[in-house]
This record gives sequence, C-alpha cells and structure tokens, in this order.
Amino acid sequence: MRMLFLVWMICAALPALADEGMWTFDNFPTSRVEQTYGAGVSAAWLDHVRLATVRIANCTGSFVSSNGLILTNQHCIESCLGALSSKEHNLLEQGFIAADRAAERPCGTQLADVLVATEDVTAAVNKASAGLADSPANEARKRALTALEQGCEQAGVRSKRRKLTCQAVTLYGGGQYFLYKYQRYEDVRLVFAPEVGVANFGGDPDNFQFPRWNFDIAVLRAYEDGRPAKTPDFLRIDFAGPRADELVFVSGQPSSTSRMQTLAQIEFERDLVLPMALMRTSELRGGYKEFGRINPFNEQLIAGPLESLENGIKVRRKLLDALHDDALIERKRDEENTLRQLAQLPQPDPWAQIESATAREREIYWPYTFIENGMGFNSTLFRYARLLLRGANERAKPNTARLREYTDASLGRIEQQITAQVPFDRDVEAMTLTFSLQRMREWLGPDYPLTHRLFAAESPSALATRVVAETKLDEAGVRLKLWQGGKAAVDASRDPMIELARALDADARALRRQFEDSVEAPISAASQRIAAARFRAYGTHVYPDATFTLRLSYGTVTGWVENGESVAPFTRLDRAFERATGADPFRLPDSWLKVKDQLDPLTPFCFTTNNDLVGGSSGSALINVRGEMVGVMFDANIHSISGAYWFDAARNRAIAVHPAIMREALDKVYGAHSLLAELNNP
Amino acid sequence: MRMLFLVWMICAALPALADEGMWTFDNFPTSRVEQTYGAGVSAAWLDHVRLATVRIANCTGSFVSSNGLILTNQHCIESCLGALSSKEHNLLEQGFIAADRAAERPCGTQLADVLVATEDVTAAVNKASAGLADSPANEARKRALTALEQGCEQAGVRSKRRKLTCQAVTLYGGGQYFLYKYQRYEDVRLVFAPEVGVANFGGDPDNFQFPRWNFDIAVLRAYEDGRPAKTPDFLRIDFAGPRADELVFVSGQPSSTSRMQTLAQIEFERDLVLPMALMRTSELRGGYKEFGRINPFNEQLIAGPLESLENGIKVRRKLLDALHDDALIERKRDEENTLRQLAQLPQPDPWAQIESATAREREIYWPYTFIENGMGFNSTLFRYARLLLRGANERAKPNTARLREYTDASLGRIEQQITAQVPFDRDVEAMTLTFSLQRMREWLGPDYPLTHRLFAAESPSALATRVVAETKLDEAGVRLKLWQGGKAAVDASRDPMIELARALDADARALRRQFEDSVEAPISAASQRIAAARFRAYGTHVYPDATFTLRLSYGTVTGWVENGESVAPFTRLDRAFERATGADPFRLPDSWLKVKDQLDPLTPFCFTTNNDLVGGSSGSALINVRGEMVGVMFDANIHSISGAYWFDAARNRAIAVHPAIMREALDKVYGAHSLLAELNNP
Repeated sequence: MRMLFLVWMICAALPALADEGMWTFDNFPTSRVEQTYGAGVSAAWLDHVRLATVRIANCTGSFVSSNGLILTNQHCIESCLGALSSKEHNLLEQGFIAADRAAERPCGTQLADVLVATEDVTAAVNKASAGLADSPANEARKRALTALEQGCEQAGVRSKRRKLTCQAVTLYGGGQYFLYKYQRYEDVRLVFAPEVGVANFGGDPDNFQFPRWNFDIAVLRAYEDGRPAKTPDFLRIDFAGPRADELVFVSGQPSSTSRMQTLAQIEFERDLVLPMALMRTSELRGGYKEFGRINPFNEQLIAGPLESLENGIKVRRKLLDALHDDALIERKRDEENTLRQLAQLPQPDPWAQIESATAREREIYWPYTFIENGMGFNSTLFRYARLLLRGANERAKPNTARLREYTDASLGRIEQQITAQVPFDRDVEAMTLTFSLQRMREWLGPDYPLTHRLFAAESPSALATRVVAETKLDEAGVRLKLWQGGKAAVDASRDPMIELARALDADARALRRQFEDSVEAPISAASQRIAAARFRAYGTHVYPDATFTLRLSYGTVTGWVENGESVAPFTRLDRAFERATGADPFRLPDSWLKVKDQLDPLTPFCFTTNNDLVGGSSGSALINVRGEMVGVMFDANIHSISGAYWFDAARNRAIAVHPAIMREALDKVYGAHSLLAELNNP
Repeated sequence: MRMLFLVWMICAALPALADEGMWTFDNFPTSRVEQTYGAGVSAAWLDHVRLATVRIANCTGSFVSSNGLILTNQHCIESCLGALSSKEHNLLEQGFIAADRAAERPCGTQLADVLVATEDVTAAVNKASAGLADSPANEARKRALTALEQGCEQAGVRSKRRKLTCQAVTLYGGGQYFLYKYQRYEDVRLVFAPEVGVANFGGDPDNFQFPRWNFDIAVLRAYEDGRPAKTPDFLRIDFAGPRADELVFVSGQPSSTSRMQTLAQIEFERDLVLPMALMRTSELRGGYKEFGRINPFNEQLIAGPLESLENGIKVRRKLLDALHDDALIERKRDEENTLRQLAQLPQPDPWAQIESATAREREIYWPYTFIENGMGFNSTLFRYARLLLRGANERAKPNTARLREYTDASLGRIEQQITAQVPFDRDVEAMTLTFSLQRMREWLGPDYPLTHRLFAAESPSALATRVVAETKLDEAGVRLKLWQGGKAAVDASRDPMIELARALDADARALRRQFEDSVEAPISAASQRIAAARFRAYGTHVYPDATFTLRLSYGTVTGWVENGESVAPFTRLDRAFERATGADPFRLPDSWLKVKDQLDPLTPFCFTTNNDLVGGSSGSALINVRGEMVGVMFDANIHSISGAYWFDAARNRAIAVHPAIMREALDKVYGAHSLLAELNNP
C-alpha cells in the first residue's frame, strides 16, 4: 500500500506534463511529442532550428535568410533605436526602413550569438569540488567553470576556426553543468523597425493582455568582414501562418523560472524580494511619470526605461499574487515531501539546509541588495564607475581568481558596454540616483554604517546631484581610456562617480563574500543533492528551470477560457482600427491610418499558443513541424506570469505576431519591397 | 480528556493578556490590574480621565487646565497650521506661540469632542434586524443606528442642555452596539506649536523607530461663547515624569485593529488590500518627491501629504510583513478552530460564510475601491464634488433612508469640511488626479465600462488637467452656496468636477449596493454569531477591536530587547544635539541651537511604554495611577505595527514625549511663560 500510495503521490506531485516544459535541445521529449501529436521532429530538424536561433541582448531572434537577416521584436532592439536616434530623427517614434543594404545602420549595442555546440562538463565540475565543505566547494566550482570557459575559448583560437564564445551553464540547480559554445556576430545592423505606436499598440494597459494588435517585429542583419553573413541555417517563413490546433514549437531563450526552488526559497521571494521590489519600482514609476508630465521632451527621455519598469511591475505583481495562492504553496510542500520520501537522503536534509540558508539571507538581504546588487545606486553612470573600478582590480588577478563576471570570457561584452555611445540625460540620472540613495537610507536606516558615512555631510539628493553633475563618465572616450589604463589609471582617477564607487566597494565586497559563503554555497550544495535525488526518482523526464539559455517548447495554436468565456486564438486587422482611439497608447501611426482602405481587414494579426515560455523568449520564432517560421513571439497572457513557479496548462498562453500581417504591412504600409523580396526568396 | 484538552487550547489560543488590550471604559479590567500591580483605579478615576480626554480629528488630546487648554501632538494639528499659514508665515516651519489669549488663533478645521455618556443599545439594534435575511438585516441595522443617533441628538436638544453629538458604535464586530454621546467644542484655537523640524526630528527615516528625540507637542484651547471653556475635568501634569517600570495608562482613541477578523479576512488583506495599497502609495510618493525636487516651493506644498503618505507606506509594509508570518496565520487558524469547537454553532458555519463573502469581495474589490471608495479620484476638489452631489441627493431623503455618512448626525462635520478655508494648489491636484485616474485604468483595464467611457476621448492626464483647471470648487463660498442650494443647485451646476462626480455616481452606487449586499451583510451576520460565541466562551474578558472610539490601556514604562540588545526606555536631550547633522530631516531649529548651552543636557526627552495602542492614539495622555499626566504619546516602535493583528508583548512599545522636556523647552527655548504658568497652576 505504501508503494502504491507513493506512486500515486508522484503522479499528483509531478507537474502535469501536457505541452509543458522549456526543454534543452539535447533532452527534447521527441517520443512524447510523437505519441501525443503523431508527428515528430528529427535530430536534423533540431540541429537546423538550433543553428537558426540567435541570442541577442535579453531576447531571441532567428535567421530568416541565407544572408544573415534576423527577425525579432521591435521591443528587443530599443537600445539600438535609441542609440541611432537624434533629436530630429527619433527612430523609436518614427521607425526605420533601410532603402538598400548600404543604408543598413550598425547597432553598436547589439551582438548576435548562435549556439553551435554544447558539452557536458558535470563530471569535471563535480570533481573539482568533491569532498570540500560548502564554501570552498562553491569557490572551487566557480574556478572550475572559469577554467573550462577559458580552455574552450583558447581551443577555438588554437584550432584556427572562427573564435568561439564559451559560457558555462548550470542546469537543474547544479545537477548538470554544460559548456555552451557560441559563434558570435559582432557587427549587427538595423534593417527595419516599425513605429513604437504600432509595435507597442495598447502600451502598458494592454501588456500581458489578449486580444492584441501589436506589430512588434524588427529586422536586423548579421555582418561578417563587412559583408552580410552567410547563414545557411535559416527559417523560411510560411506567410499563411498556422491553423488552429496545429502543433508548433518555440525556439528561444527563456530568462528565468523558479519551478525547482524549494518552499523556503519561494517564501523568501514572497516575503522580501517581491514586496520590496514592487515598492521600489512603483515609487520610481511615480517619479518617472511626474518627470515626464512636465514636458514632451522629458516624456520622451523616460519612455524606454518607464516601459520596462512598468513591465516589471506587472510581472512582479502577478508573481506575488501567485505566491499568495495557498494551493501553490501546498503543492510545493507536497512535492518536496514526496521527493524527500522517495529519495531517502542521508542527513542533513537538503531542504532544511536551504531553509537555514534563506534565514541567513533574510538577515543580509537589504544591505546586500542595495549595496552589492546596486539597488541603492540606480544610475548608468554609477554602473560604469563600478565596472571600471572592479574591472581594473579584477583584471589584475589571474583569470580563475576573479569575480565571475570579470573573467576573460566576459570581457568582450563589458568592453562593448563601456564603449557604446549611449545618450544620457543628467537630469534623469540625478533623479534615479537620488531616489535610490533615499530608498537605501530608508531601508537600511540612517544609522547603518554605510548610509551614516555617505550622508554625514550631504543629503542623498545633494550627493546625487553633485556626482552626476561633475562626473565625466558620460563620455565613451573617457571610459575607454580608464578601461585601457587599468588599475593605475582607475586608482589615479578623481572622478566623483569613481570615488563614490570606491567609497563603498569594501562594504559591497564584504557583503558579497558573506552572501556567497553563508547563502549561495549551502544552497548550491543542497540544490545539487536535491537535483541528484530528482534524477534518481524521475530520470530526465523533467526539464530544468529556465536560465537564459536555448530551449525548445512545443504546444498548439489555441485560445483559453476566461471567466467562463472562450477567448479565440486569432485577432484580425479590422479590430485594430476600431480600437485606435487616437489617444496614447491607443494611437496607430499615420503610416497605417493613411493606407487603411488598401489593407485586407481580415488579415490575421496576433494569436495565442499554449507553448511554455517566459520573458527572454521575446522575438523567438514559432516553428511548424516542417521547420518553417509561422509567427514571432512577443508577449504572453496575464496567467503566464505565474509560469515562474508552475505551468498553468489551462490558461497560460503565449502571444505571437502572425506572418500574414508581416507581409501585408511590409508591402502596403511600409513599401519595404526589397526586404519582402528577400524574405520570399531567402 | 476532551474538556481538558479544550481548556488547554483556550489558554493557548487566547491572546497572552499581559498588559494587553484597548479596553472600553465600561469594561476596564480593574481587578486584573490590581492583581498584577497591587494598585488600582476607581470608578471616579475612570470618569475623571474619560472627561479629560478629547477627540480631535484623527487624534486624541487631553484637557490640561480648567480653562480649556488641550495638549496633543504637533503632527495632529498640521491641517490647522497649514490653514493659518501664509507664504510669509509658515506656521508648520516656524511654529507658533500665542503671546496672550487674544493672540490665540481659531482653527477652522478642528473640533473637540468629549465623551460624556455611553448607552448600550444592543437589544434595540438586534430587535430591528431579528428574523431577517442577511441583506435586509444589514439595511435594518443601519436604519436602526441612524434612528438611535437621531433620537439621542433630539433628546439632547429637547432637554435644553448643551446639544449632544451622538455616534452609534459597533463593538466586537457586532456583538455590542452603543450610543456614544459627545459634548462638542466647535471653537478651538491654536495656543502653541513648535517648529516641525523638532516636532518631526528624524522625519520618515526615524518614524516608528526608537531611540527618538521629538518635541511633538502642541497646545490648543477650547472656547465656548467666545470665552475659554470651563473644563473642571483636566489632567494635572507631573513634570518629573514616570519612573522606569511605573504603572501607566493611555486614554485615547486607537483607530482600528483587525485582531478579531477571521483568517479569510486577513488573507484578503494580505493578498489584495495591502499589495495594491503599497504599490499605489509608493508610486504616488515617487510622484510627490519628483514634484518637490523641482523647487523649494513645491517641496513645501507637498510636505504634509508626503509625510502622511510615507507614514502609511511604513505601516502597510510592516502589516504585510506581519501577514507573511506563517506562525501568525497558524495561530489564527488555531484560534478559530478552538472557538469553533467550543461554540458548537449550528450550520451554516460563520467562518465559512465569511470566507464566501471575501471570495465575492475579491471579485469586486478593484472597481469598488477605485470607483466607490475614491482611489481612482485622488483629489480634494473631487471629494468636495462628491460630498456636494451626494449630500444634495441624500438630504432629499428621510434621515434613516440615507447613506450612513449623510445622516443628520454627520452633517455638522460635513459642513465644517465644506466651509473650511483650505489652501489649494492646482498643480498638485492635477498631479494626484492624473495619477489616480491612470491607476484606475491600469487596474480595471481599458475595457472596463467606466474607464472605457471616461477615457474614450480624453487621456487620464488630459481629463484631470481640464477639470482641475476649470472647477470653481476651490472657493469655499462656491461650495457653501451649492451645499445650501441643495439638490436643485447641484443638479443645475455645470462645474466640471461636479459633472465628473455625476458621470460615475450611478456606477459607484451600484458597486456600493453590491458590496453591501454580497459582502458586508453576510460578514456582519456571521461576525455577530462569532461574537456571540466568543462572549459565551470567554465572557467579557476580551476587549473589542479598536474602532476610533475611546479606550484605556495599561502598562509600564519599559524598553525591550532588540537582536539580543536591551533598548533603554528613556532618551536625554544631549543626544538630540549630537544627532543633529544639520541636513534634513536631522536639522534642529535655530531656536533650540541658540540656547543649547542653557538647556540641561540630561533632561529626559522621550520614553517607551508597553501600553497597547495603535494610530489614532497620537496625542493621548500617558497617565499615572494618581491621574496625573506623565507623557504625551506620539508614536510607537516598528514592532507595534503588527499590533493590527496581535499584541507582541515582548516588543510592541509606544513612545511618549517626556513632560520634563516640555517644561525645559517651553521655558528656555520658547519663553512661553504664560502658558507654562497656566500648566503649573491649571
């Protein structure tokens, strides 16, 4: 009876696996898909799709021609549009169409990475940390990962093939370690972007809602040696799009989920992380809105940061709602108890170890977050200062002894950040820095040593105003010189932002040490034991939490039932015009309004699927069983947000732009005929 | 065994009663105090203290002379200070000392009420609703309460004694109903207030913290017929103050606690009310701060609202923390189960009924809160518009048929609100109204009928800007004319703010009806049954939740232990000077700095007691067993906030201003010699 009871418990406690999971390409449940849908994907299909998928900053894209054309979302390339804009030509507002290849404009802020190979290095990593106590094991593991990355990159160079970018990836909370090897395109150019008014039609009110009408696409092109890159693995677009209930796949890089976290960890999220983040970001939102209310120029300045802030608020609000769902908490408890009974692990109990570690984390979370994690210093200029200061100090050490974010494998991205020409507004910087310094003093208290020291003579706003006004770090040339000058140059610098970063670096590093030794190390050790227990109990019929690395999910084109009413999966163009009130954020651009009569009102616009994905999948291709692109993912419905903790099969839906509206708009709204020709003959 | 088990459960489940409780004067646990402290209070002592206690808006005060002198907190009379200020003379910043009685300045916004009698009307109210279903019972109860208030006030008039103000009071969630009869002083004048810099020294960072150094006192005087009121029941001040561990009492009007709410009700708070309020108020705080950052005049405009907003944020943050304490939730569940077993109530189970009602409340909470409760219309001018509109419509009905807040007993306070000369800033109004309209559209969605209708042609900011710019309701004369003109005048008004209020009044009233019938009525009925069960189980050895009515608590002067370290109960003056950095909010006024050398550095400044109180008790007298005032309560420590749900005897502490610093400062800092003379010979 006991065994039967347990088996039943397993079924109850394991996630319902209908169309669920963000699977790694090496462990995709091909046979389950075949059983369910009578249609399969081959190893060649998987390789082709993987090589056609592109990682871009915080998003995903896909090659859609043999000449390096990348299709993604407009909202994924906002930093590029911002950098290429001037006061006269605001590309965010006005959009962009390259008349020909010569007119394609370099995006200094974009890189494009393709995952060309993966290597399981679990054994090597575990060997490095074997037999050590939690804290030295944690250190040894990091050194091993750095060494593996370094070896991987040097092997790429030695073999004289194209240089590889290597990234160590932790899966299943430490149950597996992989090296992911990317081919990197450093020259990425802007080909096409629509106006933000139609890309983000409905704005924050419609974000995470459906029905929707968003033309949220953009086209880039990867270049090599000054010429369009040759990209034989690309996705052909089927402009007819998918049928309802058709089997579809999403290949993308979902950012992060917490489905394998223990109850103690998600309660930590519920009690500390989410309330504090919601309060902090809501207050900053109020500041931005008031700043923007003063005049249209200000409003434009903060439009980008405000949009991403509001997105974060909506997400966190729904995450907190999910964690207030006592059924979820109970289910989590049941899952843990089931696995605990199945695993029969020797003492100490790893769940109890994680609970102890989160108790310590509760004690240091505020100072750690504000001082080391930078929540107290919300300023791009401050972030440069810290990058330069720490970069100088860390690069003076051997590669494996550095903080992980300053290893050789990371320097390329850092240099790109430091040298990118990004527009600044000192007033916005002063506002956000003032705000975050005030919040730091509020949450740590005026008597906390660092806040007491920082604000002994100056109020937060006086300090922020002074350092923002006097720093020279807004000039890319100044930053590059300090970066290249290394430790000597940075030590000699009297730039007030560098001095601020320096004034708190010892405190920040001490907090990080404390966090890594007393929180991260025991959680890593215990998570590894839980992961091993889970593999023993369930094999690899489970997928790892999302980690901003490549995943494949499957599902079908389908709506859902909301409050007893069916939500149809497809929207059509005519309703977009009906919904356009003319007032922001429901204002369609003139380019659409003036050709309204020439457009087919029944053109499908957006649609939903039940693919399991989370943020970071933005821009991912939706792919049919023939390997054709049939949509571009750009959002998900409100129920998808709880996907951080579990997959709600009945209601969690992803949202795509339909390829038919792409063809219709590129042709009749934008007259982008050469682009359309390339997409038709890729 | 079962009985024994139950008895043990009762002890475990009942609140630990050490010094706990905000008791009504008619049920004060005199014998328990005598048993614990060997010292008692007589019925005469209780009457004397009650008659010396004064209700003022949102706070408490006490008579401290036979000529109507009222001692309270500076932060309780900010609206009076604001109303009496001009650009040249900012009484908040500069403080105020009346040179003589002729210089005492009328506070148009203050009333002072003394509770002269109470009457138990439980039987009459229960009779009115007996045998009715929940919803008609709820209506009948309200009509009965209105009729009782009306009869009480008319009796006062008929008896030709001074007119009484009568208030129906619900205790124990409907277990008892009382009529509270107040003598009202309508002419209240400002005598003394210190500068906000010393009253609110430490500002928001120090709010709810201890040690503290706040000279948070103010003095008013009640007048009758143009002369200082004769107030034979007053508290003599013992300027020596109390000893450590001395028995002390607080007589005041704690605003609201939820200690008797069911688990379903506090989970509703945790899941919906608190997160939403924290997000909304944090965002508004960001808006205020940014508004104030622009120039000092703006900063001064929003100082008052910002202070109370920040206080609310701190409170709610700690309330949410308290509700994330799983031990509290478990304790609540245990208490309910114990009482459920003891009571053996017939079906339906009242806790289950409340759970169903809160499930319905979850469905309507957002529209109810934004539209009927006014969260979507954060504007003083809008509140005037609604008062005028509803006041006109309601006054046209018989008294007992009106919404409860427009019964005859309430009209006095409403008229005072409408005619008070309050300074306005249209820019602040436009900001707060824009903000709240945007939040309403966000939370209800752009497709909710009312938001869709309101914002079909105008964005929230355009609508807010227009109605704030064009309304005439900022003029007290215009408001008074509309109030006096009644329904005809209001119906004829084309004031845009009145029109806005009118445009949503039907929606708002419908939501209110829905709330009252499907949420309030069943909760009232079930709460009454729970209250009756509780009386049967525990007698009246329990105190009712706070309801902003008069209560007495007892305790001792004592510190507490924080993170293993003792916090001493008394602070002294010298440390205030050490703590004054000179930067806001740690800047002492010049008046204190320039006499620093003449002040006794060892003068006690503030101190803590373990009296059980919550907000609304601000300004309450701390009273020794001889009936002398030995302190003025102005705050409580951070642990006190969870007092909304339970009393943490080990750490919940109230904070008082010490009478010694009152004498020292009135004498040497302010030279308020005539005031001091009156306090010495009251």
